[in-house]
Amino acid sequence: MRISELGEFGLIDRIARFLPPGSPDVILGIGDDVAVLRTGGHEYLLATCDIQIEGVHFLPEKITPYQLGRKIVAINVSDIAAMGGYPAWALASLALPPSKDVSFVDELYQGMYEQIEAADATIVGGNISKNDYGILVDLFLMGKAEPQCLVYRHGARHGDLILVTGTLGDSRAGFEAIRDPRIKVSEKAQKQAVERHLTPQPRLKEGQLLGRCGKVHAMVDVSDGLLADLEHIGRASAVGAEIWAKDVPVGAACLEVASAAGVEGLDWALSGGEDYELLFTAPPDEAREIGMLLLNETGTSCRIIGRITSAEDDIQVVFPDGSKSSSLVERKGWDHFAQS
Amino acid sequence: MRISELGEFGLIDRIARFLPPGSPDVILGIGDDVAVLRTGGHEYLLATCDIQIEGVHFLPEKITPYQLGRKIVAINVSDIAAMGGYPAWALASLALPPSKDVSFVDELYQGMYEQIEAADATIVGGNISKNDYGILVDLFLMGKAEPQCLVYRHGARHGDLILVTGTLGDSRAGFEAIRDPRIKVSEKAQKQAVERHLTPQPRLKEGQLLGRCGKVHAMVDVSDGLLADLEHIGRASAVGAEIWAKDVPVGAACLEVASAAGVEGLDWALSGGEDYELLFTAPPDEAREIGMLLLNETGTSCRIIGRITSAEDDIQVVFPDGSKSSSLVERKGWDHFAQS
Repeated sequence: MRISELGEFGLIDRIARFLPPGSPDVILGIGDDVAVLRTGGHEYLLATCDIQIEGVHFLPEKITPYQLGRKIVAINVSDIAAMGGYPAWALASLALPPSKDVSFVDELYQGMYEQIEAADATIVGGNISKNDYGILVDLFLMGKAEPQCLVYRHGARHGDLILVTGTLGDSRAGFEAIRDPRIKVSEKAQKQAVERHLTPQPRLKEGQLLGRCGKVHAMVDVSDGLLADLEHIGRASAVGAEIWAKDVPVGAACLEVASAAGVEGLDWALSGGEDYELLFTAPPDEAREIGMLLLNETGTSCRIIGRITSAEDDIQVVFPDGSKSSSLVERKGWDHFAQS
Repeated sequence: MRISELGEFGLIDRIARFLPPGSPDVILGIGDDVAVLRTGGHEYLLATCDIQIEGVHFLPEKITPYQLGRKIVAINVSDIAAMGGYPAWALASLALPPSKDVSFVDELYQGMYEQIEAADATIVGGNISKNDYGILVDLFLMGKAEPQCLVYRHGARHGDLILVTGTLGDSRAGFEAIRDPRIKVSEKAQKQAVERHLTPQPRLKEGQLLGRCGKVHAMVDVSDGLLADLEHIGRASAVGAEIWAKDVPVGAACLEVASAAGVEGLDWALSGGEDYELLFTAPPDEAREIGMLLLNETGTSCRIIGRITSAEDDIQVVFPDGSKSSSLVERKGWDHFAQS
């Protein structure tokens, strides 16, 4: 069987078979975006990695080295944020053609440095290698968290409300606007969408606050797409979910770019991916209060967009006319291998 | 300026400029193969990474997925071993073409799993991505060490003796034997050389013992080549070194393959790289005792191959006739970018 037939998540399940049953110092292994480890101190150690490969994740003519440096750090910080953790140390594994100008490395590191500094973390090492096929940068990020502040994927409960920070779909709109110059929109929408795509800002302070408040049951960052990431919560927690289409915060730039491209902005908000917002669940009687706390402490708004149901319901999108669709879920975001 | 002109180590120095001056929880950042971090427990956290890219580090027709899995773990374990540390947790970042058969992933993970288990460590997560250009596997390995057992690069002192475990040059011989089928040698030498190259065995118990004994001043693993790695000690410790050519333990397979290829086995032992032996320095009155301890406790022999001199001497190879050469040092091993 080819990997493209199995798909990314099928492959992850398959790999999980090779991992031994829990060791006492592994609180959480494969299956979340972040491993949680016990080092002997009072805090747990978090570890995650994410890669950007030329031609797969980015085109060098569409992103500057500085932006690439910021992005590779931001997407890893977002994973730590989604646990309620604090980034601490990174290793950067870089491979690139020897013909590249040294200024590429300078600018890449400038971007990584600024973004990691904004997360109160440090680059402490890494590896450099030749790669004739193009540029790749793989970042390993370690972080810390108090055990009681950690929020996992697996804690969602039937009846929880589902919340999401900020807006969705702008990153996908930026991707489309970069890809297809025939899409004509206002300068403001173009700029906003492209910025969301090329230099996403992880919701770090928000994630830390949500962890600290002790009332959030499950959390992920929206990297694969709202529905795909919600399915990660659903599978880990053995629950289903319904998303109320009218309440999904579709970004203004997304609406404008999607309209110019002749598609539904909602689709990009549900399945676009790379939003790096936080998607979380909380008990119904706490949800509004958590939203107010988040707004007051960080200035970031969040919206209640649905509720957790039972596992057999799977994940459904409910439209204003009362119709439900799980067919949207079929196109549920970013599976590297399915898209090939 | 192109990266090929600056070279790998010039590039590392350049990147180091972007790193801020020490943070209190970073005991050792960029400049060693392993970062040393303070987590709050009584042990320090170690973190390292190393990558294998198709067409750069390996050719898929020359190494099985199982061997590749073992190798990527082994070379990372070797870095932890060279600090006197204990491997604990790994993240594996894998990218490959969607057309690959799933059995490739199974075999790769089987190899990784066996090698990581031999090091008493666990794979706790990672990342999977599409890569149309070929296979790459980047391993991020964390480990632990008691602060007093850690051995750095920077501790070598003028007058120290230089020791190395096992034998050198066999891995390079294996590389050459695989590359050029016209090199005809005995089946035994062929097998031994190719095994050293494809499935190197890190000197983990040896490194841990050398750390624990408290008498080793500086240590690295031989990955770039004996002279290149000795230069890492030399630069970090601000010392020079002389290597006594007659005492360098050239592997039997190396001698045979080199002879068949019409070159000097000693050259491969000095500069071949990927030996994954341990190279370390110790006070002259302790060196023999350390060698005996190592042999008794682990069954691994080591040899005294030179001594640490002052910085202005740089690194010299001394031949039996008394002649000295620093010209060999010019070809001092594996600089990814210089070799392109």
